[in-house]
Amino acid sequence: MRNDFHLLPGEELHTLIENELYILQRQDQFRFGIDAVLLANWVKVRRSDKVVDLGTGSGVIPLILAYKRKPQQVIGIEIQKQMAQMAKRSVILNDFENLVEILHWDLRRIKEVMPPNRCTLVVSNPPYFPLGRGKLNPNDAKAVARHEVYCTLSDLIEAAAYLLGTRGRFAFVHRAERIPEIFQQLTARGMEAKLMRLIQPRINQSPNLVLIEAVKGAKPGIKIEPNLVIYDQSGNYTSEVIEMYYGTGGGSVER
Amino acid sequence: MRNDFHLLPGEELHTLIENELYILQRQDQFRFGIDAVLLANWVKVRRSDKVVDLGTGSGVIPLILAYKRKPQQVIGIEIQKQMAQMAKRSVILNDFENLVEILHWDLRRIKEVMPPNRCTLVVSNPPYFPLGRGKLNPNDAKAVARHEVYCTLSDLIEAAAYLLGTRGRFAFVHRAERIPEIFQQLTARGMEAKLMRLIQPRINQSPNLVLIEAVKGAKPGIKIEPNLVIYDQSGNYTSEVIEMYYGTGGGSVER
Repeated sequence: MRNDFHLLPGEELHTLIENELYILQRQDQFRFGIDAVLLANWVKVRRSDKVVDLGTGSGVIPLILAYKRKPQQVIGIEIQKQMAQMAKRSVILNDFENLVEILHWDLRRIKEVMPPNRCTLVVSNPPYFPLGRGKLNPNDAKAVARHEVYCTLSDLIEAAAYLLGTRGRFAFVHRAERIPEIFQQLTARGMEAKLMRLIQPRINQSPNLVLIEAVKGAKPGIKIEPNLVIYDQSGNYTSEVIEMYYGTGGGSVER
Repeated sequence: MRNDFHLLPGEELHTLIENELYILQRQDQFRFGIDAVLLANWVKVRRSDKVVDLGTGSGVIPLILAYKRKPQQVIGIEIQKQMAQMAKRSVILNDFENLVEILHWDLRRIKEVMPPNRCTLVVSNPPYFPLGRGKLNPNDAKAVARHEVYCTLSDLIEAAAYLLGTRGRFAFVHRAERIPEIFQQLTARGMEAKLMRLIQPRINQSPNLVLIEAVKGAKPGIKIEPNLVIYDQSGNYTSEVIEMYYGTGGGSVER
């Protein structure tokens, strides 16, 4: 961490890997949850990968990927200006300017700023909940991160399909209840879900989240990994989750 | 079991619930596996349900449903004549003629023998594997039960959608790797997967089978149950599976 760094009013410093990786957050903004950490640790990353994170928020996923996995480049796209600015400052704070770029932009207009086939891996921890009756206030920064105010599932998958070439991968985390919709929309955009891991709070509980990796232009056929369990019987993180949060392992995958 | 019953040459008697439920099988035909037993015990059955089993084989699913769950009626449809005849004899053997009917017919031509909206619940343990290059021999009775010789996933879902009215349920077991295709084809036929349970051989192993319940005309949104584990660490059936195989519990569900 740089020594010449000062917090702005309202900012707080979160450390992921003690004394190694720092992320700025604000109480009045959406703060990243365990889902982003699980995704960043689950996704297979090659050193040659060019990565785009759709809806990067505080930049937590690009920061973890840059620290642990060292792909060629990571670009985080964020529609909310204050979040994007704070994410940029987190990049500077960690000295990742050469590896991570934060772009303040609307992913529904991705074609205006990026060419097709721009990257080899798209990641996302998107808003989980469809808009119900009565629109949410788009000035509510937390609502924008949780609900599909600016980005529906369809918008997300369209942007990913645009950014990837054939064999390009799209890895994301979402609500398990939306799996059928997700698979249907992936197929409609020429992508196939090839790997899935369900996440459940405790052993014997129902999974509520899911990690999915889809591949553009692939044939049907999915591999399902054993479920990821977050808490043990005592309510503490399982050893697998502790390793993700605090471990420095992982590294890039060559395959 | 009736006392006046004689086995035909090549037949063997399988008992599911000791001294209570008998099923005829042949070594030269497909013999039911654990998947059929799991499905018959997992599916929710009401006393008012009229059930159709698509590709009933030895009739194992109708027999278990008739014995344990007592729906109003169960019809098993089977394309292979020898299997259908043997299933009929198992129905007689168990004195279920008033409850279970076996129909020797091709489910792709279901419209010729049944009206739409004929039943409230369709069940199936269908062939799991798509035909690859080079067709399998349709005279190979075991291959017909395992591979999509006479019944593709699309044929199966079309028949189920035809037989069910709005809110009607389709419960089946399939290979987990085909989940994305399954969800896509269900949606294409106006059905939504609403409940899913993955089946894995042992704890910490990847799920390879899946139980799915779809509802005709339902909104998207799936509930995922905790995984079903077949064997414990010693290689014996788990207590949940033992209860399914040998227990007499279950009964019909009123809801």
